Amino acid sequence: LAEQWSRNNRYERGTIGRLMEPALAVFGPNTSVGDAIDGLRPIVRSAFITYGYVIDQDGGLVGLFTMRDLLFSDRLTPLAEVMLRDPFTLLADLPLSDAMKRTLNRHFPVYPVTDINGKLLGLVRGSTLFQEEAFEITAQPGAMVGVDAEERIATPLFQSFKFRNPWLLINLVTAFAAGGVVALFQGTVDKLVILATFLPVLAGQSGNTGCQALAVTVRGITLGDIRPGGAKLLVIKEALLGLANGAVTGVLTGIAMYFLATSQNSPDAVLLGVAVCVAMVASCAVSGISGALVPLTLKRLGADPATASSIVVTTATDVASMGLLLGLATLLIR
Amino acid sequence: LAEQWSRNNRYERGTIGRLMEPALAVFGPNTSVGDAIDGLRPIVRSAFITYGYVIDQDGGLVGLFTMRDLLFSDRLTPLAEVMLRDPFTLLADLPLSDAMKRTLNRHFPVYPVTDINGKLLGLVRGSTLFQEEAFEITAQPGAMVGVDAEERIATPLFQSFKFRNPWLLINLVTAFAAGGVVALFQGTVDKLVILATFLPVLAGQSGNTGCQALAVTVRGITLGDIRPGGAKLLVIKEALLGLANGAVTGVLTGIAMYFLATSQNSPDAVLLGVAVCVAMVASCAVSGISGALVPLTLKRLGADPATASSIVVTTATDVASMGLLLGLATLLIR
Repeated sequence: LAEQWSRNNRYERGTIGRLMEPALAVFGPNTSVGDAIDGLRPIVRSAFITYGYVIDQDGGLVGLFTMRDLLFSDRLTPLAEVMLRDPFTLLADLPLSDAMKRTLNRHFPVYPVTDINGKLLGLVRGSTLFQEEAFEITAQPGAMVGVDAEERIATPLFQSFKFRNPWLLINLVTAFAAGGVVALFQGTVDKLVILATFLPVLAGQSGNTGCQALAVTVRGITLGDIRPGGAKLLVIKEALLGLANGAVTGVLTGIAMYFLATSQNSPDAVLLGVAVCVAMVASCAVSGISGALVPLTLKRLGADPATASSIVVTTATDVASMGLLLGLATLLIR
Repeated sequence: LAEQWSRNNRYERGTIGRLMEPALAVFGPNTSVGDAIDGLRPIVRSAFITYGYVIDQDGGLVGLFTMRDLLFSDRLTPLAEVMLRDPFTLLADLPLSDAMKRTLNRHFPVYPVTDINGKLLGLVRGSTLFQEEAFEITAQPGAMVGVDAEERIATPLFQSFKFRNPWLLINLVTAFAAGGVVALFQGTVDKLVILATFLPVLAGQSGNTGCQALAVTVRGITLGDIRPGGAKLLVIKEALLGLANGAVTGVLTGIAMYFLATSQNSPDAVLLGVAVCVAMVASCAVSGISGALVPLTLKRLGADPATASSIVVTTATDVASMGLLLGLATLLIR
């Protein structure tokens, strides 16, 4: 056991190697079923044995057998004939998030762990993996808005404050970027104060569109749904979805602007309606693209694809939507 | 098998009863280990047996045994002596989300399913449960912003559009609520156009604060961390966190407002700074409260606590933050 501990510590945090237990029920391929049963008898008294493993003389894993195999086979049969050949294994230096994708639909009680040459190094219990998985997956919505994976309901108030405050300060900086866009066009807002009413509509709408794309992309990465080369297609799909949803909501918002502007006797009601509509379509497309691109980029950089992704996406959508509306209005209406 | 199917169909969708397989390895408590082995021999040829079950004459589950127990016990011992008594079971009418909480840290390969009287009705494989669980948990960030749990990367474009568009239209209605608040104070914005710059800062900041509280609360519900009576404490904690984070960001934003207003030679720079600071503190408190209350309320209503929660929370934070700033400015500065 001490040996296993020192072996585990050679692997990086967040890899399978760190979670290994020693493999105790290990036999050669020529061992008979009867000898394996007798060999296991003292082991099962002190350890919880689910599977037995068969290794060759170099320690390479060649097969796996169950207690059921032993129970219903002849005592003289060699293990090589009852074992399952080439069992599913995990590599010791595999990151947990990758192990998650591979084990998601297998759900075995125990996984053998090997090095790159197939040498058996230890075992990882499915329950250990799953606890890590459930912990990690349920942390995703929080990670998107800057909540630490360690924070749970019982986390003390001050600790929660320390976890969340740095991200809120980062969010404040990005929020000022959005505010800066409005400041840039202060003259336009001053002249056409009706625009101020539509800024939160555009920002809210494109923000939610972006967060939909973000959620679908992060989920796809978690479930291992994105094939090699599929990233580009995904970005295009989200851009088209943004355009389509932007068109529907843009027309509605444009009509609302037209009527509100008319009711306020604005001479530019039509142009204002067109500006809002175009800004909505374009900013929803930007939202879809950034919602897909941000987690894909984070993943490519080796980071958790959820980290602060919502903060980045909503900043992009705020800047795009308000910048587009105010920019268009400045150009169109003089 | 046909019998099991018709039995399963008596249970509601989304309950454990719907996922049951028949329990085949079932014996009486006085059966000997040897007889159980002989009785299992034909069954294991056609079915994947993990555990055996021991039932009394009324069909009530009294114990569970493993192949290991059979392998290492004397053939004459009755099952009653080798079995694990009172094994962990799931009730057939248990909703999946509750089953998830109970099995999260157990991770058994197979769970026996009973009715309320303890009668054995069937089995549910851990892998079946976990697939449902992983599918459900990874859908949460999407559910918050109106993405259907069925939507995945491979969902065709038009189907994605049909899934997401209704929620975006709902979001549009709520976004107009935020826009309506600004429209209500159009006179104030007209007079103090600098306020328009700070509206997205306040909305973005309190929106993210609210989504942090939301994410932590939804995670707590999923992991079963919220104890009876703990909901009230949670809301208070999030309100205090909102106040604390609002104080930090409010002071910074207030100072930024003061300097910007001074640079524009506004005579009301101090009052504007105070208004922004107070609005930030108060709206972050509202954000924390709504972030915790929305999922708790959805759960109490019997709905998925994540559904559209982010849409509701960001609407509340938009309305609160912009209403507070514009309302305060209207009151303070004449």
